[in-house]
Amino acid sequence: MPKITFYPDNQTIEVPQGENLLRAAMLAGVHVNASCGGAATCGKCRVVVDEGAVKTTPSPRITPEEEAKGYVLACSSTVEEDVVVRVPVESRLGDKKALARLKTEKRHGRLLTSLDIEKLSADWPLKPAANEIELRLEAPSLADPIGDRERLERAMVGRGLEGIEIGLEQLKDLPHAVRDEEWKVRVRLAESERGYRLIGFAKPGARLLGVALDIGTTTLAGELVDLATGETIARAADYNAQVSCGEDVISRIVYSTKADHLDRLQRLVVETANRLVGEMLEEAVATSDEVVDVSVAGNTVMTHLFLGVDPRFIRLEPYTPAFRQAPVLRAGDLRLEVAREATVRTAPCPAAYVGGDIVAGAVAAGFASTDKLTLFIDVGTNGEMLLGNADWLLACSCSAGPAFEGGAIRHGMRASAGAIEQLRINPSTYEPMILTVGGRRAKGICGSGLIDAVAEMFATGLIDGRGKINREAETERVRVLEGQAEYVLVWAEDSDTGFDITLSEADLDNLIRTKAAVYAGIVTLLESVNLKPDDIEEIIIAGGFGHYLELDKAVIIGLLPEVAFDKVKFIGNSSLLGAKLALVSERARQVSSDIATKMTYLDLSTDARFMDRYVAALFLPHTDAQAFPGVTSLLKKGTSGTEESKGA
Amino acid sequence: MPKITFYPDNQTIEVPQGENLLRAAMLAGVHVNASCGGAATCGKCRVVVDEGAVKTTPSPRITPEEEAKGYVLACSSTVEEDVVVRVPVESRLGDKKALARLKTEKRHGRLLTSLDIEKLSADWPLKPAANEIELRLEAPSLADPIGDRERLERAMVGRGLEGIEIGLEQLKDLPHAVRDEEWKVRVRLAESERGYRLIGFAKPGARLLGVALDIGTTTLAGELVDLATGETIARAADYNAQVSCGEDVISRIVYSTKADHLDRLQRLVVETANRLVGEMLEEAVATSDEVVDVSVAGNTVMTHLFLGVDPRFIRLEPYTPAFRQAPVLRAGDLRLEVAREATVRTAPCPAAYVGGDIVAGAVAAGFASTDKLTLFIDVGTNGEMLLGNADWLLACSCSAGPAFEGGAIRHGMRASAGAIEQLRINPSTYEPMILTVGGRRAKGICGSGLIDAVAEMFATGLIDGRGKINREAETERVRVLEGQAEYVLVWAEDSDTGFDITLSEADLDNLIRTKAAVYAGIVTLLESVNLKPDDIEEIIIAGGFGHYLELDKAVIIGLLPEVAFDKVKFIGNSSLLGAKLALVSERARQVSSDIATKMTYLDLSTDARFMDRYVAALFLPHTDAQAFPGVTSLLKKGTSGTEESKGA
Repeated sequence: MPKITFYPDNQTIEVPQGENLLRAAMLAGVHVNASCGGAATCGKCRVVVDEGAVKTTPSPRITPEEEAKGYVLACSSTVEEDVVVRVPVESRLGDKKALARLKTEKRHGRLLTSLDIEKLSADWPLKPAANEIELRLEAPSLADPIGDRERLERAMVGRGLEGIEIGLEQLKDLPHAVRDEEWKVRVRLAESERGYRLIGFAKPGARLLGVALDIGTTTLAGELVDLATGETIARAADYNAQVSCGEDVISRIVYSTKADHLDRLQRLVVETANRLVGEMLEEAVATSDEVVDVSVAGNTVMTHLFLGVDPRFIRLEPYTPAFRQAPVLRAGDLRLEVAREATVRTAPCPAAYVGGDIVAGAVAAGFASTDKLTLFIDVGTNGEMLLGNADWLLACSCSAGPAFEGGAIRHGMRASAGAIEQLRINPSTYEPMILTVGGRRAKGICGSGLIDAVAEMFATGLIDGRGKINREAETERVRVLEGQAEYVLVWAEDSDTGFDITLSEADLDNLIRTKAAVYAGIVTLLESVNLKPDDIEEIIIAGGFGHYLELDKAVIIGLLPEVAFDKVKFIGNSSLLGAKLALVSERARQVSSDIATKMTYLDLSTDARFMDRYVAALFLPHTDAQAFPGVTSLLKKGTSGTEESKGA
Repeated sequence: MPKITFYPDNQTIEVPQGENLLRAAMLAGVHVNASCGGAATCGKCRVVVDEGAVKTTPSPRITPEEEAKGYVLACSSTVEEDVVVRVPVESRLGDKKALARLKTEKRHGRLLTSLDIEKLSADWPLKPAANEIELRLEAPSLADPIGDRERLERAMVGRGLEGIEIGLEQLKDLPHAVRDEEWKVRVRLAESERGYRLIGFAKPGARLLGVALDIGTTTLAGELVDLATGETIARAADYNAQVSCGEDVISRIVYSTKADHLDRLQRLVVETANRLVGEMLEEAVATSDEVVDVSVAGNTVMTHLFLGVDPRFIRLEPYTPAFRQAPVLRAGDLRLEVAREATVRTAPCPAAYVGGDIVAGAVAAGFASTDKLTLFIDVGTNGEMLLGNADWLLACSCSAGPAFEGGAIRHGMRASAGAIEQLRINPSTYEPMILTVGGRRAKGICGSGLIDAVAEMFATGLIDGRGKINREAETERVRVLEGQAEYVLVWAEDSDTGFDITLSEADLDNLIRTKAAVYAGIVTLLESVNLKPDDIEEIIIAGGFGHYLELDKAVIIGLLPEVAFDKVKFIGNSSLLGAKLALVSERARQVSSDIATKMTYLDLSTDARFMDRYVAALFLPHTDAQAFPGVTSLLKKGTSGTEESKGA
């Protein structure tokens, strides 16, 4: 890996070949002003390459003379070999690195995406729920004129497959399918509840594809998977179009009870799903009828709404869903635009407030085969948590709200192109250093960016423990509008929207309530089995924060308890990963069912301890400073560091 | 049974209480002129009741003075007690009864309709494919909050029912269904190929209904059945709307190969089916969602078209259908307007030209449990025949054409209101005596009327053995238009259409070709197993002739071989009866499958013997007079009788 040495900070870091130089600086704890998120438009991240060479895109912000002296825009440069880089004074301004001490090699954790599925093959042997067999049928003759269906079944029986379920559409396709290739036919089958279902006949050259879908209250995410290899060949995500009908599950349920609203909600979420599927198919140059199996994970309410099943009884005591396990359905019946007969399998929803998303997450987190006491946290619209190991599993849900998904935050957005995903604030000048998804001009801020922002604002003293902005801070980025203070992350001139991107006290309040709910959930869950944070042997963090959630930041704001970072593993969107595993691995499907049966649910909404813990957590990092000794100590050092700098 | 004595013929006959007096005269072989079919408009059927009383509807054709003398219109009178009736000279005119000698008590055979199903209960114990169970579920509680689906399944398992297939729509209905009646629910289940399918939940007071459908090339017929009792509660029939796309299966196949025609054909036949179902539901004051199971019988091509499956390969060597047994389908997928999830089961189609209609017919004919050598004849658009007993079964099909269903005959029609169904011709005056379905003014002539007409025209010498009309006959009813002779059955003034209802030499030619095909099929079938007509122990006749097919007439024209009439049984629309049996009896469903497997098919289209037999049969009754000794002898007597009459 190339090694970069930054001067005058004298910080050295190794980064993967091709890493962006601005991100490398951020990783090294070196502050470089950067406002446009990596779009090469603000021209502030000028650095000088003194030794070695970087690969850079020329910019009008760099004059030929400067270029000759080694000037490049850090955001437009990638590192291919060992280099020595100097940050000139105009790019640094105040050059303190108050937070550098918390940095470790592991602080980013390990982002385990489904790209790593090959590495999981020992745990999850490839056996998709849908597969394809090639059959060579005997051609009919006057002596053997049985029907095409019976001829096909005879050949299947010869391969040990009996009692295949065949629908009307397959029956319609059958006479031509068997004759098109002269009685050679590729039959696509998918597991149904009682054997196999005939999905269709493969056209020449057709791939066997599956779609994994995470149906979140706020966001849908999908993967298009080649079922022959288990590899993901395209991805997409977008907001759930149901958001217009209510932000959380309760408001969706309320909305669904009126007139045709249930059908409308079903159509909306399927429209979003179809858009994602369409995008992925286009990206993979595939057609909808190549998709023969769809695996869906969503919380209990979202799973009901995806199927158009009335969820109203979920919120009425005794909180019973219409189903724990939906039957294997047909895509056409749900208006999903894949092969009409494609099977749609949804992850089981063990309880009203513990759904298929968390079951899928538990599968992806490997609960089925771990001896370690593991805590799993999925910070979606409903913060959901699991505690246990292969022997027992306790679940709870804490209605965190959609703040970390960008919901209920004025400039919040999901982790798509242009979202601020990493952020540093210079503790002297309060100037930010931002990186966006895709290196675009900033459009808003996503989960990881929000966590960074709160942590950095808190650590630099821009906000206090209650999230109130220091109106005395010497920067024009802090301002008061209509009685409410806010901090300007990106000025309108550097943003993609043409408006200032800000974080207000109201936004901060939402974020603190969300983190408090998650933290209170974790502590209550542990206490319910008489355990403490230190007893946890592994923490697995899931959620749509983006790709760069930094553990130290999450601990600084008190979202996570202070644990050894090497215990922590990230698995990104675990619900999506679990859905994908169910698509490709028979073992995952079995484990999913087992986990749903085994899981015990702790109802936080009726738990007085939870409310106490929640109120206590409405502070950064927490009202109980003893619970966060590392952060407390760090902040002291950081503050003194800043003072030293000022003194220098 | 009331006894009627007709004078001056001195003929006595017993008839069921309430029998129509005109029909009684016909049965007794007494000729009474009657032109309007029983609509009381022509006023020709005046008779005098000398002893006893009939129930009569007053008519302006009878003056008060005549009424005082006992005059009534025979067509408007029913017999309630023993009576003596005198046919006045003006109603008789020529009063010969040339054909009376062939009459026997049994000549009508026994018309076995599904109304007799109760009498069949020993053979066909009631066990519908769909049934209903009432379940009382445990109400959910905080301690037992499992999903509604799982709660339902738990209760079903308690009743010994496992692995019920549940679809999306049922899942949608479930949360409300279980709560509407406070956890008491009536669950409707239907047999599917692998267990049971949940059809839906019964609304309070809802009946459990099934529909049996005979999908004929020309005509559709249906019965609405109460599955709790096995009783038929409504009936309907109509032309297959596909007729506009071709009269026979070959032209339908040809039509289906173009553009969207296959879908169009499917829509058309389902439209007709939906109309019939709608009529029956209205008659029975029932709703479409009460219909949970549909049993369909049709020939192989019609079964394909009903499902929208391409039938083109049926007519290409080696004549393979797309399926022998279609899967159990969902009504909604076929656009059938019954409960959306209702099961649709089609009778198996063992070969390209031996379809579900004939399998259903074989079931209805009782082949599964007879020791007797039985010949079954179904004269539909395709004349289909079966020969065998419980041990073996040989089938053939002879493309008879639709003549006996009213097709390809100018004034032909199916046996609905206003169709001439019985007919006599006075051998002296050639005046007809006609009875229509429902006693309406005549609209046309149906199968039984056509057989009567050909037989009477032949027996009275109006036509010769080749079907050529005697242009010298002394009656204005015989006329020649544009070089073609025809006989006027009903004058325009007496008809419902305002046009003369006629039978032309072209019509007669079609009828003779049809009867020749059927007869040649019977003989070829027998010869193929070295049997003769006399070996037959039972003949079962099915078909849409109408309700009054007379055996002697069928023999006179050479449609049937000359056999002892007590061997003959009519079962009306056997395909419909078989479809109904499959609806109500598990044994019938099993027998249907067994018969389809057991049946051997004799391909007449490639059989040189058949063509020889066909050509030989293109004569009335047949070119081989020895094959019809009774008819030959009768005609001699009849002719001499007529001569005697003339001499008298």
